[in-house]
Amino acid sequence: MNTVINTCAAFFNEIRKKNPLIHNITNYVTVNDCANAVLAIGASPIMADDIAEVEEIASMSSALVINIGTLNQRTITSMIKAAKKANEINIPVVLDPVGAGASTLRNKAVEELLSQVKIDVIRGNLSELSFIAGFEVSTKGVDASESDEKYNALDIAKLVCDRYSSIVGITGKIDIISDGNRYVKVANGHKLLSKVTGTGCMTSALVASFCGVTKDFYAATVAGIAAMGIAGEFAYEKAGRLGTGSFRNNIIDALSHMNSTYFLERVKIDEEKY
Amino acid sequence: MNTVINTCAAFFNEIRKKNPLIHNITNYVTVNDCANAVLAIGASPIMADDIAEVEEIASMSSALVINIGTLNQRTITSMIKAAKKANEINIPVVLDPVGAGASTLRNKAVEELLSQVKIDVIRGNLSELSFIAGFEVSTKGVDASESDEKYNALDIAKLVCDRYSSIVGITGKIDIISDGNRYVKVANGHKLLSKVTGTGCMTSALVASFCGVTKDFYAATVAGIAAMGIAGEFAYEKAGRLGTGSFRNNIIDALSHMNSTYFLERVKIDEEKY
Amino acid sequence: MNTVINTCAAFFNEIRKKNPLIHNITNYVTVNDCANAVLAIGASPIMADDIAEVEEIASMSSALVINIGTLNQRTITSMIKAAKKANEINIPVVLDPVGAGASTLRNKAVEELLSQVKIDVIRGNLSELSFIAGFEVSTKGVDASESDEKYNALDIAKLVCDRYSSIVGITGKIDIISDGNRYVKVANGHKLLSKVTGTGCMTSALVASFCGVTKDFYAATVAGIAAMGIAGEFAYEKAGRLGTGSFRNNIIDALSHMNSTYFLERVKIDEEKY
Repeated sequence: MNTVINTCAAFFNEIRKKNPLIHNITNYVTVNDCANAVLAIGASPIMADDIAEVEEIASMSSALVINIGTLNQRTITSMIKAAKKANEINIPVVLDPVGAGASTLRNKAVEELLSQVKIDVIRGNLSELSFIAGFEVSTKGVDASESDEKYNALDIAKLVCDRYSSIVGITGKIDIISDGNRYVKVANGHKLLSKVTGTGCMTSALVASFCGVTKDFYAATVAGIAAMGIAGEFAYEKAGRLGTGSFRNNIIDALSHMNSTYFLERVKIDEEKY
Repeated sequence: MNTVINTCAAFFNEIRKKNPLIHNITNYVTVNDCANAVLAIGASPIMADDIAEVEEIASMSSALVINIGTLNQRTITSMIKAAKKANEINIPVVLDPVGAGASTLRNKAVEELLSQVKIDVIRGNLSELSFIAGFEVSTKGVDASESDEKYNALDIAKLVCDRYSSIVGITGKIDIISDGNRYVKVANGHKLLSKVTGTGCMTSALVASFCGVTKDFYAATVAGIAAMGIAGEFAYEKAGRLGTGSFRNNIIDALSHMNSTYFLERVKIDEEKY
Repeated sequence: MNTVINTCAAFFNEIRKKNPLIHNITNYVTVNDCANAVLAIGASPIMADDIAEVEEIASMSSALVINIGTLNQRTITSMIKAAKKANEINIPVVLDPVGAGASTLRNKAVEELLSQVKIDVIRGNLSELSFIAGFEVSTKGVDASESDEKYNALDIAKLVCDRYSSIVGITGKIDIISDGNRYVKVANGHKLLSKVTGTGCMTSALVASFCGVTKDFYAATVAGIAAMGIAGEFAYEKAGRLGTGSFRNNIIDALSHMNSTYFLERVKIDEEKY
């Protein structure tokens, strides 16, 4: 019985009722898309990264998402400070390790974050999670490298879950979400999602949004990842042939209409235990 | 007789003829939308925030808009420097106090700006203006808090106008624009505007754009706020049901077509004196 | 015989096959559009500007584009460091001198870049290139000033090509691309392109994308500039009347469908020698 599916489905009403505030420390490339995705799904975004305010902003928020897409030395310090505060006041922290494996700066930032704070959810691609699992990767910038497909996503997920006591979401052709004991495979999505910048970042922001209304971060991660996959399918059906500009807008359109009915009709999920 | 309406209506031709340069020191979330809104209405945007160039950029501009949406310690200094130069050369300064009341950093930045420079127009939501008026607010991040509705927008506007000799625009379900002696209520807009990030920021950028072609900053504030409200109505009629992604694009579309005819046909405005 | 046209036409398949990684150090206004344009044409963008990582990121990339649209003192240092590394490892550097002539900061940054590193392609408007050629300009912010039309684009292009041994692309009503000995005039495009922010920046990002798959930077510059012009024409035909928001999305749509057939059917080009 697909128990996680029903938990996920209930989030869509819940989030529009509670309208949680989601603190985003994120990159300047896709920040606008992240804000609009968070709004579309029914939460409220706040972007704030100055070290002088991140603790206060985290304190009024229901979840924190840290995305290292265009990190710099100023924002790394803010990320750690915000995450420590989030730990202290017991709100969930979602990490999107964009480009982990691609530069020493990114690698060190991820290591610092994972060693100094409790990360509740890590959402990334196979290259990024393989790096976090301790393997040598050939990350192609911020996109997953094909040569990293030698690693098995289920193994990588379990390794990272166990090491950091985090929920792990690895997105790709088939998405894997795991808590270390069990996992789901999500088969939603469309390959055009990789031709629009920010679909990964938006996914992490959606995961954080759902984390803002539940203590079940495993289900929240499934919901966020599956919601983006389903939105990608709707967007492709409506506008895929028009081109990637129209497709992108239709992702936000689809998220703004997403609800438990669409979710239950569309989600393609397998639940398993290790 | 609605005298301000005719003044406003004349701006639409004027701005497309004069094409004023508008200096924006703004946030990285909605900066692209602000630039496109300024272009759509017929002005030219320039975004520049480094302390080494803000005075020169302000000097060639017709108006300056300061938006603290993602301020940091580097940009606060630039904001003050640019605004002082704007005062010196007598070009209008529009302040969008995004999230005032939400953090000490934002509060201090607003206080510094209001004490050190002359601000011609302040455009924000009720929570932000209530904070500036000196009341305790429960700002929900960058959005107005419902619990701040205990404050009366007309009273708040008058208080702030009187204290800072500024024009005040408070946007909400009904928008209030005041110069301290008189006020207008604008009933345009659509609730979906709150589900797209940047509609407030774009409104402030439009206000600054109109301030770039007139000395009547009261009318310019009315025009900017009403233009966004009307654009929201057009966008809803064209694309509201498609979702918030399409709705957002149609806001820019509507602004690019906005003219005195549409304005006069659509604007819902009441002019009053205190 | 239009030899450069066939070279250009071949790039469209080539870029989608090779999918080169393009390192962008760019502004926060149009960065999202640049990333989506690079993806649409078949390359992969990475945006990274911290001094601690720009050398590593450049080292894994096929081309570097430097855009000074919202430069600051932190990023100037990163730009120079990244460009020096690009020179060292022999990958092409494309410079978009946004707003050159408008402030001392921008002027100095451009001078520093041009004196310290080899720039393979400079893509800008007539005001920006006139400044680089050593003339006094009246740049209107980041847009070309009409009063700078006193300068002849062909002369300016030749001067800059000769001085810096760079390919020069000057975009305007008629685009000029030159290597100092020969030039092309490209007559594609639509005036609405100037009413959307970022079309210049996207053009430079496209030029860099094509530079990532060839050693013929002259042809790559022609291809990038003409591709944007043709995309503007398609976008106008599809959505120009809807407004600038829809027009903008259709630019990305058109880029995502661009191929050698559309290019050869549409391109309006004259090849000449000085």
